[in-house]
Amino acid sequence: MKIEELKTPAFLVDLPKLKTNIRNMQARARMHDVRLRPHVKTHKTAEIARMQIQDEASGITVSTLAEARFFQKSGFDNITYAFPITPNKMAEAAELSGRMKQFHLLLDQRETARALETYGRDNSVCFSVFLKVDCGYHRAGVNPSKLESVQLAEKLQTSKHIQFKGILTHAGHSYHCRNREEITRIAKLERDVMVEFADRLKQHGLACETISVGSTPTAIHAPGWQGISEIRPGNYAFFDKFQADIESCALEETAAAVLTTVVAHYPQRNQMLIDAGALALSKDPGAVHLDEEFVYGAVPGNPLLKIFNISQEHGLITGQAPIAFNNFPLGSLLQIIPNHSCLSAALFPKYHVVEGNRVVDEWQPMRGW
Amino acid sequence: MKIEELKTPAFLVDLPKLKTNIRNMQARARMHDVRLRPHVKTHKTAEIARMQIQDEASGITVSTLAEARFFQKSGFDNITYAFPITPNKMAEAAELSGRMKQFHLLLDQRETARALETYGRDNSVCFSVFLKVDCGYHRAGVNPSKLESVQLAEKLQTSKHIQFKGILTHAGHSYHCRNREEITRIAKLERDVMVEFADRLKQHGLACETISVGSTPTAIHAPGWQGISEIRPGNYAFFDKFQADIESCALEETAAAVLTTVVAHYPQRNQMLIDAGALALSKDPGAVHLDEEFVYGAVPGNPLLKIFNISQEHGLITGQAPIAFNNFPLGSLLQIIPNHSCLSAALFPKYHVVEGNRVVDEWQPMRGW
Repeated sequence: MKIEELKTPAFLVDLPKLKTNIRNMQARARMHDVRLRPHVKTHKTAEIARMQIQDEASGITVSTLAEARFFQKSGFDNITYAFPITPNKMAEAAELSGRMKQFHLLLDQRETARALETYGRDNSVCFSVFLKVDCGYHRAGVNPSKLESVQLAEKLQTSKHIQFKGILTHAGHSYHCRNREEITRIAKLERDVMVEFADRLKQHGLACETISVGSTPTAIHAPGWQGISEIRPGNYAFFDKFQADIESCALEETAAAVLTTVVAHYPQRNQMLIDAGALALSKDPGAVHLDEEFVYGAVPGNPLLKIFNISQEHGLITGQAPIAFNNFPLGSLLQIIPNHSCLSAALFPKYHVVEGNRVVDEWQPMRGW
Repeated sequence: MKIEELKTPAFLVDLPKLKTNIRNMQARARMHDVRLRPHVKTHKTAEIARMQIQDEASGITVSTLAEARFFQKSGFDNITYAFPITPNKMAEAAELSGRMKQFHLLLDQRETARALETYGRDNSVCFSVFLKVDCGYHRAGVNPSKLESVQLAEKLQTSKHIQFKGILTHAGHSYHCRNREEITRIAKLERDVMVEFADRLKQHGLACETISVGSTPTAIHAPGWQGISEIRPGNYAFFDKFQADIESCALEETAAAVLTTVVAHYPQRNQMLIDAGALALSKDPGAVHLDEEFVYGAVPGNPLLKIFNISQEHGLITGQAPIAFNNFPLGSLLQIIPNHSCLSAALFPKYHVVEGNRVVDEWQPMRGW
């Protein structure tokens, strides 16, 4: 089958680029002597996760218990559930723990640690738990400069129903960077905060088996990861317009695109209508810290085209220069690099895997919670 | 089952409110003597669509051919596919036409009309087609003041393989309104533009069987629909924060909510973490023309709480006043009214139907294209 025969909108995964992105990240991890534990929330498919793990010992990272269930059933037995556990999810987490060689949780609240300990005692379970650390993103995690954070690590270490696995962070503020220099600075900070906190824990007699870090931007541009055990980037498998805009990658390296049809021409307002709207591209506005104008994706080879307005199924493209409408006949196809591939991918029930112009496979991602 | 037993995030549909919203819109259509052809893209379920049609003669509106297929298989045989047809979708449209009593397409391009005619001739099909009119939204549709628009209607009327069904518009600019007075003004304009264009077509000897209009805001606040055949609102079944913000409804009337768990407290930064992020709420920023600050949903009963930051699975709530954390214990549940219920609903593989605190049903919406 050829790309031209697909119904639109469709989600395309460029197999050679995907493989290159995966290989490059594995090479980076080897170069820096850290383990790679890819975050699979970007694609949610067993096929890509299998390509991503470096060797049999490597694990993956998931963002929901539903992903953990799906990947466990698909044969993965070393998973970190990188979202803080809550009391109403402990029973399911306990069940999953029993089915895998390694299943790691994380938390940043003393009260959650107490609840986990109680659950573990009442149900004779021992959970493997990371302490989530805030290295400057300020989304989740304990403040590493506070004594109470050390005390929480101590509580985890001394609990009979918790195995203290180590410390974990996500430098999400690397997404606020403007270029590779700024990302490199955040990567250094991410490393330093974590290594210093681990040292502090050591001074208190607390051993961190694993120090886990990683966002895609910092995994790409880190000068080194001395003292760090593992990195957990996810987006790098596909990349997207956002990553290209902040210089995590080149636009040409992006391995996912939304295939769309040119539906109508409006020369009077220099606009074209396409059939990729908010349900195909997501409403992620992209790197608005670099350009305040909302643009919902890039059209490779056509940098002057802007997807400036999307509703549920409609996308409107305008041009910084008059559009050469003859180059975009009605019914012709365009490939759009989405702003945020994780959110766009999640909108499609299947991915079409392509090599050049040929559709070589179809992958079914997991969905829901 | 009780709401408290659900896994989060979950999508809740409040059955009594849903029924009231549906009944109210049916009463409005009767009062104004127009047919109601609800747009089902908001919920994409056969269950709700069956409640929405007024009588056996009523039809529905869909936004994709995949929806048309799904609803045709579910027993609906009168469907308007309210997105401009393109050459690569004509074969599927022809097949669907053959399976239903009524299946209406729309277009606004002369070239598409030619392609449709050619397809019809080559395949012995006759398509029922609306001319899409731009009543001021400037997303799609012909300019009703141009002679070429009349000529396109004439082309549709005279084609042997097209049955000219009438004219159709969507006053999407009602979403840019600030209150009911402004919406009422847009509704009058929407009606006037369409009735005047139909009159103009009549002067040219062209008969419009159907004049179709409607967005949820204008369907709610139109002073009357004299001369109009049918309205096609969709969002009203659920409503959402956006509709409440522009005064299409009260927040209490919204029939859809995202159930989420309180995951962590950060008193130092007056923030709470929840497990509803961009994959549960969508990144729709809401009515930013009313309030530039991005807020990703409302917490009923807690107007001072703001969901100010969302990533894939994380949502961060802050307060305009210090949060009373004791009222939101870790692991407790919150219901969030999403900014845009159509986009939020589309992210869930199933809906939990609730009456008060009880989960009374589970509905499976259609997904994909």
